[in-house]
Amino acid sequence: MAKIIAINAGSSSLKFQLLDMPKEQVIAKGSFERIGLPQSTFSMTYKGEKWEETTSIFDHSDAVHILLDYLIDRGVVQTLTEISGIGHRVVHGGEAFDDSALVTEDVLKKIEDLSELAPLHNPANLVGIRAFQKILPHVPSVVVFDTAFHQSMPKESYLYSLPYEYYENYSIRKYGFHGTSHQYVSIKAAEMLNRPLEDLKLISCHLGNGASITAIKDGKSFDTSMGFTPLAGLTMGTRSGDIDPALIPYIMEKTGQNANEVVNVLNKKSGLLGLSGFSSDLRDIESEMVKGHERAKLALSIFVERIQKYIGSYVAKMQGVDAIIFTAGIGENSYHIRENVTDGLKWMGVVLDNERNRKVSGETIISTPESKVKVLVIPTNEEVMIARDTIRISEKVDS
Amino acid sequence: MAKIIAINAGSSSLKFQLLDMPKEQVIAKGSFERIGLPQSTFSMTYKGEKWEETTSIFDHSDAVHILLDYLIDRGVVQTLTEISGIGHRVVHGGEAFDDSALVTEDVLKKIEDLSELAPLHNPANLVGIRAFQKILPHVPSVVVFDTAFHQSMPKESYLYSLPYEYYENYSIRKYGFHGTSHQYVSIKAAEMLNRPLEDLKLISCHLGNGASITAIKDGKSFDTSMGFTPLAGLTMGTRSGDIDPALIPYIMEKTGQNANEVVNVLNKKSGLLGLSGFSSDLRDIESEMVKGHERAKLALSIFVERIQKYIGSYVAKMQGVDAIIFTAGIGENSYHIRENVTDGLKWMGVVLDNERNRKVSGETIISTPESKVKVLVIPTNEEVMIARDTIRISEKVDS
Repeated sequence: MAKIIAINAGSSSLKFQLLDMPKEQVIAKGSFERIGLPQSTFSMTYKGEKWEETTSIFDHSDAVHILLDYLIDRGVVQTLTEISGIGHRVVHGGEAFDDSALVTEDVLKKIEDLSELAPLHNPANLVGIRAFQKILPHVPSVVVFDTAFHQSMPKESYLYSLPYEYYENYSIRKYGFHGTSHQYVSIKAAEMLNRPLEDLKLISCHLGNGASITAIKDGKSFDTSMGFTPLAGLTMGTRSGDIDPALIPYIMEKTGQNANEVVNVLNKKSGLLGLSGFSSDLRDIESEMVKGHERAKLALSIFVERIQKYIGSYVAKMQGVDAIIFTAGIGENSYHIRENVTDGLKWMGVVLDNERNRKVSGETIISTPESKVKVLVIPTNEEVMIARDTIRISEKVDS
Repeated sequence: MAKIIAINAGSSSLKFQLLDMPKEQVIAKGSFERIGLPQSTFSMTYKGEKWEETTSIFDHSDAVHILLDYLIDRGVVQTLTEISGIGHRVVHGGEAFDDSALVTEDVLKKIEDLSELAPLHNPANLVGIRAFQKILPHVPSVVVFDTAFHQSMPKESYLYSLPYEYYENYSIRKYGFHGTSHQYVSIKAAEMLNRPLEDLKLISCHLGNGASITAIKDGKSFDTSMGFTPLAGLTMGTRSGDIDPALIPYIMEKTGQNANEVVNVLNKKSGLLGLSGFSSDLRDIESEMVKGHERAKLALSIFVERIQKYIGSYVAKMQGVDAIIFTAGIGENSYHIRENVTDGLKWMGVVLDNERNRKVSGETIISTPESKVKVLVIPTNEEVMIARDTIRISEKVDS
């Protein structure tokens, strides 16, 4: 039995879960926000009780100290020696990491070198790792990358049709993201279907505020909708997904923005927000649509259409599909989106059990027994995947 | 019976075909190149004979004069009154034109206004139209747009997930191109399958140096792979097709190019050329691949993969497909590409007749009789489509 802390550190935030492994049960969880800013906050939930504090938190090390004190003070752990590993989410592993890795100076250096590919995320992730290293130097730390699962993609999937030197000289290629989530739900899907993961063709739809779809064959990522950055692919909460790249200079000229500003619009003011004109949140859009809001309806139709087209392209790419998985905020909670997406997939043998679809709770098969292609809803759990990898990788090193 | 001239004018070129309608037979055809430049050339083929001249051609009017003189001199026509219509290809009709149109001052004004959307093409097309108007003012001229066929796309297909104002204020949307070709082959496919076009779900693959795929439902364009410009969609001879739009500022930073220069690389130095490193011509790449050239092989795999994914996405979008059409240079001539593309489509009931595929001549059904989805090769003929529209539109106005 082992207690593992799963960490997701941002530039001014730090989210944590303490997990009881291999039971995969959450013991305590919480987050720090506004680290290094006025009015930092800390919250933790343990045994149904929730603490919230507004206090001064100078930096990530400070946050880690507060966290560990709290764990002792509230009796979550008796001594810190109970913590046998720390798993850190890191956004970008580039081509250097096709699996999670034990933290060493060399590994940290590589993550730092990859900051150019994820300038907002990798440096923040590093701050979190270093803070724990300083305070718990003897506890093994493992880094788990959003991109690693997708390193199995064949060259046909990950290369853009650009001058080849751009790949060689500037590392320009498709990396893909949400890998931890896509991998987690694919493993779970095989369990639910009671079939070996290696025999399955899966399409996993991670639909949250960020959204991506992955084709998973033989348990490996075969293609994915996000690209060099998480902007590409589907219509998302505020992201445009795929557009004609020639639009960038055209929008620059029309609006007087520079290229970075335009890409910022594509990241922050597009997607459901840009189309609807009022919200990036699918729930808001669904409730306005019901009232007859035209652009809410349009935003939803486009959101669904892009998902269906990606599913179609991945069915073609894998030459078939055994199951389609819905996960993350929208995928887990919007029966309406699941209904609309699958309604357009009847031609390929998808038969939805409408009642089950509307009463999903936890992991649920929402297709009928006759459905040629199974449809599953699986709550994603990146923290469990991080904790599993933390144990697997640190044990591998021990032995 | 009517003789129609079909014209495709570029900034320094003018291609023509004289067609015998409704027989749809080419009487004579040829082209002017380097108009207004030193060493202009003119060539014409008529009854198996070919004339080529290097001469001084001052402007497009000059070219039209030379052309008409030639037609009389070589006995192609006895008098110019035999020419009953002139059909002009125009690249961009924006949202103003969902069909071909008789040339009027108002129509010319609209085409000019749309030049912003096709700065290289519409002005050149206009020069051609004006030249004929000046010299044959009493012969009806009809404009046939590359974009018009795609105006039937639903909003879900043509809107990008950008701020909605970009559509309203700057006409930013998917227009699609090669419409004349996609329409021509879809009509021909219905004839070959002996089924009403309105009942068919078709996927038309126009694969030339530029390449696009269109989903055609009820005889109408339902979605297409090119976008606001002809850069989007498939991997092409020199064009990248779809990429992560966030790559543009990244490439700018890495290479010191501005946004227009980067898009120029995406248009001119990418695609098969960028991937292979030596040619944009599929024939060169196929012959190098046979010799074991690694990047030639890679370029071909990616070319095929993108086609398969678009086909899959359009099968999903139309909820099925009756026939897949191959047309244009590569589509008509590379049995290897047709074999590779359809090899990945067996799962959906495509069965290729390998022998027929290797011995295509003219319009050919290359799937077996059992194949659930038919596969057709149809030589495209934009000039015939232009001539047909010239007659249809000028008669509509007469009556």
